[in-house]
Amino acid sequence: MSKRAISGFPELLPGERSTEAWVENRLQEVFEKHGFVGIQTRAVEPLSALEAKGETSKEVYLLERLQSAKSGQRAALRSDTLGLHFDLTVPLARYVLQNSNALLFPFKRYQIQKVWRGERPQEGRFREFTQADIDIVGQGDLGLHHEVEAAEVMLDAFQALNIGPVLMEINNRKLLQGIAKAANIDDFGATLRALDKFDKIGADGVRQELSSLGLSETQVNTALAAAEITAETGSELREKIAALALPAEPLAEGLDELSVVLDALYAFAPGQVRASLRIARGLDYYTGTVYETVIPGHEGFGSVCSGGRYDELVSDGRRTFPGVGLSIGVTRLVALLLSAGILQADRPSKTVVVVAVKDEATRSESVAVARVLRGRGIPTETSPSAQKFGKQIRFADRRGIPYVWFIGEDGSNSVKNIQTGEQETADPTSWSPQS
Amino acid sequence: MSKRAISGFPELLPGERSTEAWVENRLQEVFEKHGFVGIQTRAVEPLSALEAKGETSKEVYLLERLQSAKSGQRAALRSDTLGLHFDLTVPLARYVLQNSNALLFPFKRYQIQKVWRGERPQEGRFREFTQADIDIVGQGDLGLHHEVEAAEVMLDAFQALNIGPVLMEINNRKLLQGIAKAANIDDFGATLRALDKFDKIGADGVRQELSSLGLSETQVNTALAAAEITAETGSELREKIAALALPAEPLAEGLDELSVVLDALYAFAPGQVRASLRIARGLDYYTGTVYETVIPGHEGFGSVCSGGRYDELVSDGRRTFPGVGLSIGVTRLVALLLSAGILQADRPSKTVVVVAVKDEATRSESVAVARVLRGRGIPTETSPSAQKFGKQIRFADRRGIPYVWFIGEDGSNSVKNIQTGEQETADPTSWSPQS
Repeated sequence: MSKRAISGFPELLPGERSTEAWVENRLQEVFEKHGFVGIQTRAVEPLSALEAKGETSKEVYLLERLQSAKSGQRAALRSDTLGLHFDLTVPLARYVLQNSNALLFPFKRYQIQKVWRGERPQEGRFREFTQADIDIVGQGDLGLHHEVEAAEVMLDAFQALNIGPVLMEINNRKLLQGIAKAANIDDFGATLRALDKFDKIGADGVRQELSSLGLSETQVNTALAAAEITAETGSELREKIAALALPAEPLAEGLDELSVVLDALYAFAPGQVRASLRIARGLDYYTGTVYETVIPGHEGFGSVCSGGRYDELVSDGRRTFPGVGLSIGVTRLVALLLSAGILQADRPSKTVVVVAVKDEATRSESVAVARVLRGRGIPTETSPSAQKFGKQIRFADRRGIPYVWFIGEDGSNSVKNIQTGEQETADPTSWSPQS
Repeated sequence: MSKRAISGFPELLPGERSTEAWVENRLQEVFEKHGFVGIQTRAVEPLSALEAKGETSKEVYLLERLQSAKSGQRAALRSDTLGLHFDLTVPLARYVLQNSNALLFPFKRYQIQKVWRGERPQEGRFREFTQADIDIVGQGDLGLHHEVEAAEVMLDAFQALNIGPVLMEINNRKLLQGIAKAANIDDFGATLRALDKFDKIGADGVRQELSSLGLSETQVNTALAAAEITAETGSELREKIAALALPAEPLAEGLDELSVVLDALYAFAPGQVRASLRIARGLDYYTGTVYETVIPGHEGFGSVCSGGRYDELVSDGRRTFPGVGLSIGVTRLVALLLSAGILQADRPSKTVVVVAVKDEATRSESVAVARVLRGRGIPTETSPSAQKFGKQIRFADRRGIPYVWFIGEDGSNSVKNIQTGEQETADPTSWSPQS
């Protein structure tokens, strides 16, 4: 049997997986505390849905039944050919439309699930990873305050991870569009994509790219000056925008929205949120606030939590469900936090007590004690073998299990703290581990 | 956008999913209390691994990158072509071999994860579903008591689901093999497969099938008499086996093992475990105890928890890792329990309090109260709109949220219990919901 790792499909050892599960559980707790409900969607969508939106549709894994592959009659690609989802947003959009009569709006859902991208292996990217997404989806309309709420939930989520403060950078698509309009820049999409590379290619690179789009020097200067604006409060933002000396009217709606969202978040988490007009987000479907999040001191991680408001993504032509969502790439985040030493791998076992076994003939006595301890909520194992007690203690010690329980020849019970070496008589119906 | 369900890929509404998640969490708690560690394996294995073992290899979904499918240059099937795993046992075997130096043995792991089977849609079977597996894998050897332990864990797991007693039926492959040998039945495999159909085609059907295999009438009678044996204790089992009047020696090892396992489980859960010699299990790789589990009164559900001991499954030719494992088909179990009314769908929200909003201008006051309540562990939402209070109460009521919080014009706080209609003044820093 082949036993090799497959590039792009990461797997964790038990202690690391325990840490990842801890992260997932903290996120889930925060999401539920904010009234979000958890759903799971099927792993597959029809090709038509996977190709409908966004930039990643080219990285899809299609499914094919082994039997048809073997028969040599491979099915032609059709719009209903199944592929693995590459994000949790496309499935959400479909789930909302499919179940719109059964759901209550605004529908606030979280989803922690695996996604797949058919990247080339040599790129060293994850081809399978877990995302944790929250979205708030309205029916017909969705108040601006939900763009505040989505950020608040994710800031709470990071706080629950206890990894120090994060910096969430926000922008507003309407404001960017307004700036483009006020500066008479026609190809807003191309300008956006150029600005989106700011962190990668720097101001000079962006300047060159914008010039090659046919922007005048004034326009390039305006775009770059705008992209360098950051602000912590609405009034700071308004001042800096005013300094661009652009016509006010095209900017008004986006500026108002970004100011309101910024001030609401400033009140909640000063120093953890700022407007940054270079945040553009690649995806076409965003229409309002867009978000990226970095861990200060670890900017090299890139954004660990991104998303935005989308007005038109969820629609069946007749009805429209505007939404706002944010997403954490859990697999990547945990890998980064572990490798940076910000999180540690757990010990490989959650067991607190190993009940030693004198000999196989009396194993049932040890099993009975383990059962009593477990019934009281204490994770307990019975020793897998009746080796010498020293070896049984070593079994516990290697796993980081803190206590070993002994049943004496006379039936008396005692428990040994491996770390301190102390051993004391104990009653399985009342003993508790020191925390 | 297409919004149809896809046959075989079930999805749940939020309240149902909440119930399913509750089941998964109860199972996980029990597994961890028994010292099992959770792992996740990648969704894919190379075709060579998927085809190596067992009967389901024909139902595999293979992956193909969209770009290569589109290019018309579809890749030929190779041993390293990736396919989705159809169970969690093949991945475990590979994971153990791959990480044998980093794991501690016996390695007790649980795994709650999705699996996929490329069934034909018209068969109405699940093509994507969640399994909850436990396995205990030793290095070189694995004591018989772990065959008891695996059953004990799953019996505890079902107890934690609070769905009433289950009946676990066990058998032992060595005993079956011993009976075949003692009765001079050569084609043990075919005999097993015939016996495995006992529940489907009845004694007469099995008799016919065994005859067609060339068994004499005496042999058929022996096989059928054996298949009808059930016993709650080792001594009962020994008596009934003795009545078959077969040579004792070929049966001895299997009979000893099954008796020991049976007696140990009888002491733990009398009435919930019995030996049933018709339990054969389809898979080739079982070598010791095999398990099936039914819910009395709902035998039509079929087995809800099955597995067995396997000595040779995990091997790289040089080293062998014997194991024992049991598996629950969570998706199927939850669907059955919901449809039978044994479990109910949760309310669609875990929120306990909705903080009403007087008007959008004072939303921040409501947000602040919600934050205080949430900080005290109380799941709280702020009302999505500043509609009339009656409508805000209705928002909570439709979601089954029990409390609505009001901030008066004078800043005073009060909370209304929607069910009783009672409203009382309350302090967000100290108020708690009645449980």
